[in-house]
Amino acid sequence: VNERVQQATDAWTQLLGPKSVTTDPELLAALGANATGFAPRAVVAELHPTSTDQIPAIVHTARRYGVPIYPYSTGRNWGLGSRLPPRPGCALVSLRRLDRIREIDVRQHYAIVEPGVTQEQLADRLRDDLLPAVLNVTGSSPRSSVVGNLLERGTGFHNHRVDDLRGLEVVLGTGEKIRTGFWGTGAGPRSRHHYRQGLGPYLDGLFTQSNLGVVTAAVVNLVPAQEETSTIVFSFTGTLVAEMIEELAELYREGVLRQITHMFNDKRLLTLRGASTVPTWTGVTAVSGRRDFTALAADLIASHLGRLGASVSVISPRDEVDPFLAGLRDVHLGRPTEMFMRGVHEVLGGTSEGIDLDELDASPVGMLVCNPFLPLEAAPVLEAMDIIERTCEDRTVVPAIAINPVDGNALEMVVNIYFDRTAPHEAAAAHACNALLHERLYGAGFRFYRVDIENMSFLLSRETAGWSVVSKLKAALDPDGIISPGRYSMS
Amino acid sequence: VNERVQQATDAWTQLLGPKSVTTDPELLAALGANATGFAPRAVVAELHPTSTDQIPAIVHTARRYGVPIYPYSTGRNWGLGSRLPPRPGCALVSLRRLDRIREIDVRQHYAIVEPGVTQEQLADRLRDDLLPAVLNVTGSSPRSSVVGNLLERGTGFHNHRVDDLRGLEVVLGTGEKIRTGFWGTGAGPRSRHHYRQGLGPYLDGLFTQSNLGVVTAAVVNLVPAQEETSTIVFSFTGTLVAEMIEELAELYREGVLRQITHMFNDKRLLTLRGASTVPTWTGVTAVSGRRDFTALAADLIASHLGRLGASVSVISPRDEVDPFLAGLRDVHLGRPTEMFMRGVHEVLGGTSEGIDLDELDASPVGMLVCNPFLPLEAAPVLEAMDIIERTCEDRTVVPAIAINPVDGNALEMVVNIYFDRTAPHEAAAAHACNALLHERLYGAGFRFYRVDIENMSFLLSRETAGWSVVSKLKAALDPDGIISPGRYSMS
Repeated sequence: VNERVQQATDAWTQLLGPKSVTTDPELLAALGANATGFAPRAVVAELHPTSTDQIPAIVHTARRYGVPIYPYSTGRNWGLGSRLPPRPGCALVSLRRLDRIREIDVRQHYAIVEPGVTQEQLADRLRDDLLPAVLNVTGSSPRSSVVGNLLERGTGFHNHRVDDLRGLEVVLGTGEKIRTGFWGTGAGPRSRHHYRQGLGPYLDGLFTQSNLGVVTAAVVNLVPAQEETSTIVFSFTGTLVAEMIEELAELYREGVLRQITHMFNDKRLLTLRGASTVPTWTGVTAVSGRRDFTALAADLIASHLGRLGASVSVISPRDEVDPFLAGLRDVHLGRPTEMFMRGVHEVLGGTSEGIDLDELDASPVGMLVCNPFLPLEAAPVLEAMDIIERTCEDRTVVPAIAINPVDGNALEMVVNIYFDRTAPHEAAAAHACNALLHERLYGAGFRFYRVDIENMSFLLSRETAGWSVVSKLKAALDPDGIISPGRYSMS
Repeated sequence: VNERVQQATDAWTQLLGPKSVTTDPELLAALGANATGFAPRAVVAELHPTSTDQIPAIVHTARRYGVPIYPYSTGRNWGLGSRLPPRPGCALVSLRRLDRIREIDVRQHYAIVEPGVTQEQLADRLRDDLLPAVLNVTGSSPRSSVVGNLLERGTGFHNHRVDDLRGLEVVLGTGEKIRTGFWGTGAGPRSRHHYRQGLGPYLDGLFTQSNLGVVTAAVVNLVPAQEETSTIVFSFTGTLVAEMIEELAELYREGVLRQITHMFNDKRLLTLRGASTVPTWTGVTAVSGRRDFTALAADLIASHLGRLGASVSVISPRDEVDPFLAGLRDVHLGRPTEMFMRGVHEVLGGTSEGIDLDELDASPVGMLVCNPFLPLEAAPVLEAMDIIERTCEDRTVVPAIAINPVDGNALEMVVNIYFDRTAPHEAAAAHACNALLHERLYGAGFRFYRVDIENMSFLLSRETAGWSVVSKLKAALDPDGIISPGRYSMS
């Protein structure tokens, strides 16, 4: 251990207390395990702050001794690197204990949450306090961080999660704490969070997919509770993909559809439900609002998709349904579920034991993700699917694919590659396949909306001009480059 | 004229040609006239580039000789300073001749426009080419810039205009040209503009209400044309304001209302229509979509507002109506109109001649604007209105007020103070009143979403910590501070 690291660790220990600083080499090595199966990077310590007030001093110490930090919220960025830093030599900073829900306002429908607040925790609070507001949840673990997923620009079932962002509290690389928009101006309590932009340059975007600061709290939009939510579940054959996309695009343009639609291929569906046969594609979407509007909208969507040849069910919150349909409905009602990950162990062939998702990073399950973001048009989606299928076939990998229209313009694609991390040959094939997917899709003109810590370098090498602006901002806000070096950044 | 200014002007003249550089002192002095009635700031030249390719060289020259530039689009930022720089010694850069509509894509519903493109020009193009898309227009002059108003974060009749932003081309203060999001990455032609965020930190927000770069083109969302648009016009007495706000808030939360509502007080309405008596408040909103949905929504809105005591009409695009109602409908159909400014000369008492809006800055009409942005709740709106009315009464000014719910959270307030610029005493009273409005509203905890070039210094003096981050970004992207010094920035 070099001297600067020792000094930094001593200072952090003095600040946080010895129980909140992990330096035991065996424990640190265990932190390197990750579902993605990337080679662990050496970390010099793990810090466990218990209050956001400790973050400026943690940053000052990092800066003083030149030891970079890699903060993570709950570390469940599975498939993209979990809590693994791109570069060795960082101190991990777990923000899991910063788990205060600071405020909930149902009239202005927002919550102010710290990075350790999980989607389960916030959804439970809304339910237990009978509050008329709903969280836009993702299909990841109920124990994943609301703030972490939002900053990574994940998608929920209601809307793209970054659109929920209404303000940030951030500690910059200088140790300075800022609050964005009207929040930072001493505005009155009812005049802080109703408008994200504030006055002057709008800054929140800078801190999403970013290593420009440590976010210590976010103001997150809640969805006002509605009289009715109709969940629409539909299945269809592979020959109908193009027509389904065009039909859904039209329903979004007309404003009939306003929430995200998810469509899972058979491979992906098998990780959601045990079944001997499943349809080639299974989709789910929902409409919420006054009952007279949702009835009209749900009928219209069902008849349009049915006319194309899909098999369609419309489910109300009062219907008795099987656990699979209940899971699809729950996420549209703001209830997080493990269902979308529950069957992930099934993909390892013989194994039939369940996996504790909280221990996924230490399990044999390997999982890689490729995330192209496409226009909501049939032709480019089919072209991308063709590249994906041919590439995976070459490598004898079966991709689990979800194609998710998010609004009238765009479709999120989530390509999951599962593998057995205990089988080195299988793991190597999966990684090679994922790298090739990124290369071929990129070469065909497609782009990604999230990227794992290893394929990132591929993009940086091809887009140096664009990323140089990010480097300038990095130098301005984190002059010594001590926050998450190399994550969504060249520096 | 000092030597650096002379050298810069020579270099700009060599670059653009003598006809594109104004240096005649009389002509430059005339550029200082402004509807706001602010004291003119001396400018050293006005440049008239004809191609966006000239902007990097203009910036390089400014930087080389240390002569700052103040770019403006069409200069119609009436009430907030028009094209007037906050500080003397700049060269104005008129971007009016950069008026190319570079691309229109109706399937992905966007247009790529340069700063000189007016809302009339873009709306006419959509109409003339029979394209199934509609522009989100503002109530300002048809000859105002789409990009300028968007970057200033103005509001349209359909939505807040900054939400239309889907990508930017910007020349930084270093002279470097960047394009944001996927646009800057060489993505395929169908994979550039469907998703504003791109990968890594989201940058567009940095260049709104900002002096961090010169925007040379913007990708602007268009609204897909809909089967039906029902315009709802309603009037009500002052006693109903609180109930109307609460009712509209509920309609937004339920998703029945999705466009901006405007409500004008009697003073403001008189600038729209000549009439001997007008209701205390007149409102307009619209619903668009499939006819079955708009019928349901329009009926519901009309019956809810009617039940409270408002007088309500629902107008279809096919109804024959008077010019006033036609104007209110036009803006919801994407047709810009002069109507919202047409009667502005009436406020000057005796005068009954019309004003050419293109010459407003040179006319006797004086106009100041105060723009608080409030939560969509009755109590704070009434509190702010009370402060405004008492302050104006003290100064014997009659404010023209619009209160405009923009979504389920927020209400834009536009307080216009009109005065005769040829009457020095009247002008001084108007300015004093507007300064006091800013002070008292700020002191009561309210905040502003746009601010004129003079009241800006009041805010900067009270919020130095927050604005210091903007200064850091300024130093990174415009190291010599040569773009619009002092506009939405301390530097």
